[in-house]
Amino acid sequence: MDVPAYIEANKGRFFADLKEWLAIPSISGDPEHSGDVRRSAEWLAAYLRDQGFPTVEVWETAGLPSVFAEWPAADADAPVVLVYGHHDVQPVEPLSEWDTDPFTPTEKGDRLYGRGASDDKGQIFFHALGIRAGLAASGATAPPVTIKMLVEGEEESGSVHFAELLRTRRERLACDTVVISDTTMWAADVPSMCTGMRGLTEAEITMFGADTDLHSGSFGGAVPNPLHAMTELLGALHDADGRVMLPGFYDDVVPLTDEERELFARLPFDEETWLRTAGNSGAASGEKGFTTLERVWARPTAEVNGMWGGHTGPGGKTIVPKEAHAKLSFRLVAGQEPLKVQEQIRVFVQEHTPPGLRAQVQTGGGVRPCFSPIDSVGVRAARRAMEKAFGKEVLFTREGGSGPEADLADILEAPLVFMAVGLNDDRIHAPNEKVEMPLLLKGAESAAYLWEELARALR
Amino acid sequence: MDVPAYIEANKGRFFADLKEWLAIPSISGDPEHSGDVRRSAEWLAAYLRDQGFPTVEVWETAGLPSVFAEWPAADADAPVVLVYGHHDVQPVEPLSEWDTDPFTPTEKGDRLYGRGASDDKGQIFFHALGIRAGLAASGATAPPVTIKMLVEGEEESGSVHFAELLRTRRERLACDTVVISDTTMWAADVPSMCTGMRGLTEAEITMFGADTDLHSGSFGGAVPNPLHAMTELLGALHDADGRVMLPGFYDDVVPLTDEERELFARLPFDEETWLRTAGNSGAASGEKGFTTLERVWARPTAEVNGMWGGHTGPGGKTIVPKEAHAKLSFRLVAGQEPLKVQEQIRVFVQEHTPPGLRAQVQTGGGVRPCFSPIDSVGVRAARRAMEKAFGKEVLFTREGGSGPEADLADILEAPLVFMAVGLNDDRIHAPNEKVEMPLLLKGAESAAYLWEELARALR
Repeated sequence: MDVPAYIEANKGRFFADLKEWLAIPSISGDPEHSGDVRRSAEWLAAYLRDQGFPTVEVWETAGLPSVFAEWPAADADAPVVLVYGHHDVQPVEPLSEWDTDPFTPTEKGDRLYGRGASDDKGQIFFHALGIRAGLAASGATAPPVTIKMLVEGEEESGSVHFAELLRTRRERLACDTVVISDTTMWAADVPSMCTGMRGLTEAEITMFGADTDLHSGSFGGAVPNPLHAMTELLGALHDADGRVMLPGFYDDVVPLTDEERELFARLPFDEETWLRTAGNSGAASGEKGFTTLERVWARPTAEVNGMWGGHTGPGGKTIVPKEAHAKLSFRLVAGQEPLKVQEQIRVFVQEHTPPGLRAQVQTGGGVRPCFSPIDSVGVRAARRAMEKAFGKEVLFTREGGSGPEADLADILEAPLVFMAVGLNDDRIHAPNEKVEMPLLLKGAESAAYLWEELARALR
Repeated sequence: MDVPAYIEANKGRFFADLKEWLAIPSISGDPEHSGDVRRSAEWLAAYLRDQGFPTVEVWETAGLPSVFAEWPAADADAPVVLVYGHHDVQPVEPLSEWDTDPFTPTEKGDRLYGRGASDDKGQIFFHALGIRAGLAASGATAPPVTIKMLVEGEEESGSVHFAELLRTRRERLACDTVVISDTTMWAADVPSMCTGMRGLTEAEITMFGADTDLHSGSFGGAVPNPLHAMTELLGALHDADGRVMLPGFYDDVVPLTDEERELFARLPFDEETWLRTAGNSGAASGEKGFTTLERVWARPTAEVNGMWGGHTGPGGKTIVPKEAHAKLSFRLVAGQEPLKVQEQIRVFVQEHTPPGLRAQVQTGGGVRPCFSPIDSVGVRAARRAMEKAFGKEVLFTREGGSGPEADLADILEAPLVFMAVGLNDDRIHAPNEKVEMPLLLKGAESAAYLWEELARALR
């Protein structure tokens, strides 16, 4: 029995099991559901044991538990792959906007509705089916690579204890490649793989002037105004071409390759539609020389998130305000280090603080970017696996934000491969979350092929 | 009996009368004291009648009353001079910081303490003594110019009904020159005259982007950020030399003459001391090529008074905010028109609104600047009068802000002359307001000479 045939024969059971798991409201952000998150972990652990994993453990953290499972290859020298996903889910409010109960998984045509159907229970679930399909097709009793799974319980509440868990369990988690199944494809008929996520660092800048607000009639025009200095500083943050002017900001940026740009360009992207999703933004704009997708996926940015100072109430008040404040965030791409960028921020602010004012910079929120080059061994293997399953060319995307993926790459010192079949219209984090059931089966098929591909590629 | 002798002989009575008037708490900003403001007007009217003014009237407004008095010259063709001051006073809070009761006028050495002693009862009061001293010295029964007095009752609460009063009573107030007695001299031993006050216009700018705040991971760097546009707009409001970049902003500015700059420069000005009064500002700064005094007195400015947008609460929030706001005020100098500057603001904002954003500008608060050239007939006459009274050279100052003076000049179509003897350390608007009694007598002496000088100069 080949992989597709096994999956076809077992899909009924697969979805029945998934629905049982989806019925558990494992909302990690709501303390009232902590028990449900634990129940979800126990359910998954039992399920993976039942699927044949020789080792399955529930790993406690200072918060909510992760599930760890391991199925060793027959060959002790075979590559080791760690699959990452999460079993906790987002809150469901506003409940009134759901057409079906979020924890009563409901099929409508090819779609399965329910919280977690796409993000991320459905996507982690297809791996078990994939492994069994691979074994059925090969007739082996163990997969061609050692498969470890780590299914987190706090991803939707900020992965607060995840890095600590990775450090503590570093030896048990040791692997050659990490496979992330928590992203999306471009479209149901445009299979694609994510190859990177932007990192982040944040800064709050305060510009101090006089001890008090000053009367602008008596002092205006003769003492420095902190709001002027702040607007001049922030106004100088980008040049006319939209490039970020922090000193050295682009020095370490891994540039997009011509091949990746060409592959991005082949994605069927409609800018008008995208602008509507961007709160009806009036125009695309940003760094000159890059497309909208390149800008949000693969270029670093500086964004003023908030700013305030002086009189902000009704009416006028003719003052020179005593201070000005701004909150900034920087999206970082492959090659950039949050700590290095934080230092660039401090230098930039210092260079733009005029005589007579004092500036203060508080930085934080360092998340490193993650990146999988499209010509890396793992990405190429995963692409072959997906192309075999989908029967068509697989393109590439990236994501503009990031979660705990960089910690996996950094702490486990392993390259990342993103393989997932969610769609952007799955309404994750929103009412009426759904997953396309045929795509989950394609995910299982891709996963089945992936182990063979990785076994060959990594050996 | 010459002018000084008359003043010396009558000073006891002068201060006794002034104290009686100062005891009336004519706080125009406090509705509970409206009756006191009326009582103050009636008191002053009775006093001026007693001093010999043939015509004295209390003029009602929609708010609190002004006092009008007229003493015609014997010669029907003589010039007409209108003296402006106000009989209302500032509130006295915090009362606990007063060393003496604010409405129990108290002499300590050469100083007379009490609310209104300097601003403005004391200064308007010296005119009556000045007129009588002039008559005593000349032996005439009428002054050499027709003297009109207009003593407002709402100056400390915004002169809300003053322009209307001027328009209604325009014919009665017709004059060749307005003498303002509501400013200060540089120092007790540095007599000076104010020659101008800056005007004002205000603007509120709003920059609109997307319909909602956007996630900066998904959209940052690819749609316009209203806070970026606002900081770039405001950052471009001044050039590197501190000049205001509104198109045409300086076109109509009456430049400082070399003589006025030279006279400003002779004022004993200590920048370190001034910076301490400026809330311990760290440095003087502003338009290149001008001194601090020139900047606050005689150069137009643009000041960002307040700004806000996006996330301003604790912690970070990685958004592209949907809008940004700023409040600005512009100090205007001789030659500039508020309405014209408001149009320049709109043009500047339009030129700095990037594609995809929408800007809105609300303007208001037009106060025209007022200005008395130092070589004008009235200023030269008043300078001669003060120099005769003080026995030394009189220098020139200006004021950075403005009150109802521009309305007087505009509506009555008459040049302004500022003659006053208050000091910057009189603590007007603050606890323990005082006036230097010898300076009030010098004011009376200056006023006595002024009518002769103006009669000669304006004839």
